[in-house]
Amino acid sequence: MSSDTPDDSPVAARQAMSGLEYFRLVAEGKRPLPGMFSLLGLRIAEVEKGRVVIVATATEQFYNGLGVAHGGFAATVLDSALGCAINSMQPAGRVYTTLELKVNYTRPLTREAGEVRCEATVLHSGSRTATAEARLVDVQGRLYAHATTTCIIV
Amino acid sequence: MSSDTPDDSPVAARQAMSGLEYFRLVAEGKRPLPGMFSLLGLRIAEVEKGRVVIVATATEQFYNGLGVAHGGFAATVLDSALGCAINSMQPAGRVYTTLELKVNYTRPLTREAGEVRCEATVLHSGSRTATAEARLVDVQGRLYAHATTTCIIV
Amino acid sequence: MSSDTPDDSPVAARQAMSGLEYFRLVAEGKRPLPGMFSLLGLRIAEVEKGRVVIVATATEQFYNGLGVAHGGFAATVLDSALGCAINSMQPAGRVYTTLELKVNYTRPLTREAGEVRCEATVLHSGSRTATAEARLVDVQGRLYAHATTTCIIV
Amino acid sequence: MSSDTPDDSPVAARQAMSGLEYFRLVAEGKRPLPGMFSLLGLRIAEVEKGRVVIVATATEQFYNGLGVAHGGFAATVLDSALGCAINSMQPAGRVYTTLELKVNYTRPLTREAGEVRCEATVLHSGSRTATAEARLVDVQGRLYAHATTTCIIV
Repeated sequence: MSSDTPDDSPVAARQAMSGLEYFRLVAEGKRPLPGMFSLLGLRIAEVEKGRVVIVATATEQFYNGLGVAHGGFAATVLDSALGCAINSMQPAGRVYTTLELKVNYTRPLTREAGEVRCEATVLHSGSRTATAEARLVDVQGRLYAHATTTCIIV
Repeated sequence: MSSDTPDDSPVAARQAMSGLEYFRLVAEGKRPLPGMFSLLGLRIAEVEKGRVVIVATATEQFYNGLGVAHGGFAATVLDSALGCAINSMQPAGRVYTTLELKVNYTRPLTREAGEVRCEATVLHSGSRTATAEARLVDVQGRLYAHATTTCIIV
Repeated sequence: MSSDTPDDSPVAARQAMSGLEYFRLVAEGKRPLPGMFSLLGLRIAEVEKGRVVIVATATEQFYNGLGVAHGGFAATVLDSALGCAINSMQPAGRVYTTLELKVNYTRPLTREAGEVRCEATVLHSGSRTATAEARLVDVQGRLYAHATTTCIIV
Repeated sequence: MSSDTPDDSPVAARQAMSGLEYFRLVAEGKRPLPGMFSLLGLRIAEVEKGRVVIVATATEQFYNGLGVAHGGFAATVLDSALGCAINSMQPAGRVYTTLELKVNYTRPLTREAGEVRCEATVLHSGSRTATAEARLVDVQGRLYAHATTTCIIV
């Protein structure tokens, strides 16, 4: 981000520590959230190697013209969890970025769903590419969307 | 949205007018932008039957932790254009929503790209489902992402 | 198929029995395999409500020009398992067909993998559409491909 | 393939000639078709740099249990055309393989469609990955399926 000094930037931090260490610091509030996480109110709730949970709430500011959450809201939550899960398996200096993302929408999402939970799990972690899957559910386990991704080493 | 009276809501408006008419009013500023459009600074630049162009700029507030636009930013722009293109073909009272979205990321997107342009075109428009494709390019025609979608009648 | 009398066709059979009953008969060899299953040597190994396992072997006749199984081979196995899993949840007369399929290839597949196993599980089963996921693994659990699908009621 | 001597294998051929040269020889019948192409009756009808057309006919042997072409048939045709289009841009020794494939099915495909035509076009060709899109249409231009892919350098 523009306000980081080079030494303190997320990119520099990931040169110096693993994805797992980095996301744990973000989850604990010891590293700043990325801009898009702040904007959509995403929070990293759980981090372990190959598995990340992100939580968020679909308030009206994230709606489309039909009175439900915009597809881009769930896509952002899912992509965030998927990317974090894949990077949580990587050592210092090794960063993956999204090549492709595919989202299925299974139920309309509104603020009435309350805080929704997106759990992402790595399916394949290779030397150049990795894949993961994620599901977005409410507290009662109802499924709103699910996704898969391919990431590639930067 | 919560602030609309029922008669003036986007949902009520789409009961009374075609998708083409509705998106033209939005493009002209005569209807409010959906929440997510405002939040990400999306603007409908062109609307015709089966083809919509949305423009946006990937400023830092839309970045991920790696100093480039979050994948969710492009996903939101692409999903918006795709959904509008499909709905621009529908008569009053006939509305489609996203069943699935697949995005390919082909180049890192930053604010240096300037205003990017997302053109969506309908590929198939059936009685229950429709598909469309979209591309996100800068003013020089460089491709940042492309996507396809399936929408289903509400 | 052309050789079926109308009364005995798979389509007629599915009018008269549930997907679960039908696929169990196919698995037991009491109903003929669809043409594409025979051609690629696919076999239904396990069927329960919402979960189907198909097995196959990637012999040279299914190779592409690079000396490994053509992407279409895994796509066919995955689509078969996904479609059967979704239809295994449907009552008599209710049939779903594939709207979209997304496959990730994680490892080259050759005949050396031996008989591979594709397990598909339903993620969402709604009144009009359903989604499922599937993975293609060898006997040691190595992942060759995974996929998700959206099906729609015919 | 197992019957090729090493010097004459498709893999060796692609070490010695560009994708464009190689697929032109295949199209002219001067190089053998890959196994899966023969099995499904695929034929390379047109080849130029970044654009390939494959033709095929959905006869009953490629049907699923519902009396229409199996989704794997169109997936194989589309993946073939997409992979050839991307490799048609590559010099000798540079080969791309499929990372992911996403297919949309827009209309049931049967033998009544006659010979269908699948045109694939490259969208992005980078140093490590490439993307392409393809459409499967009949002689009247009716769209049966469309797809996108990401390929990665071997």
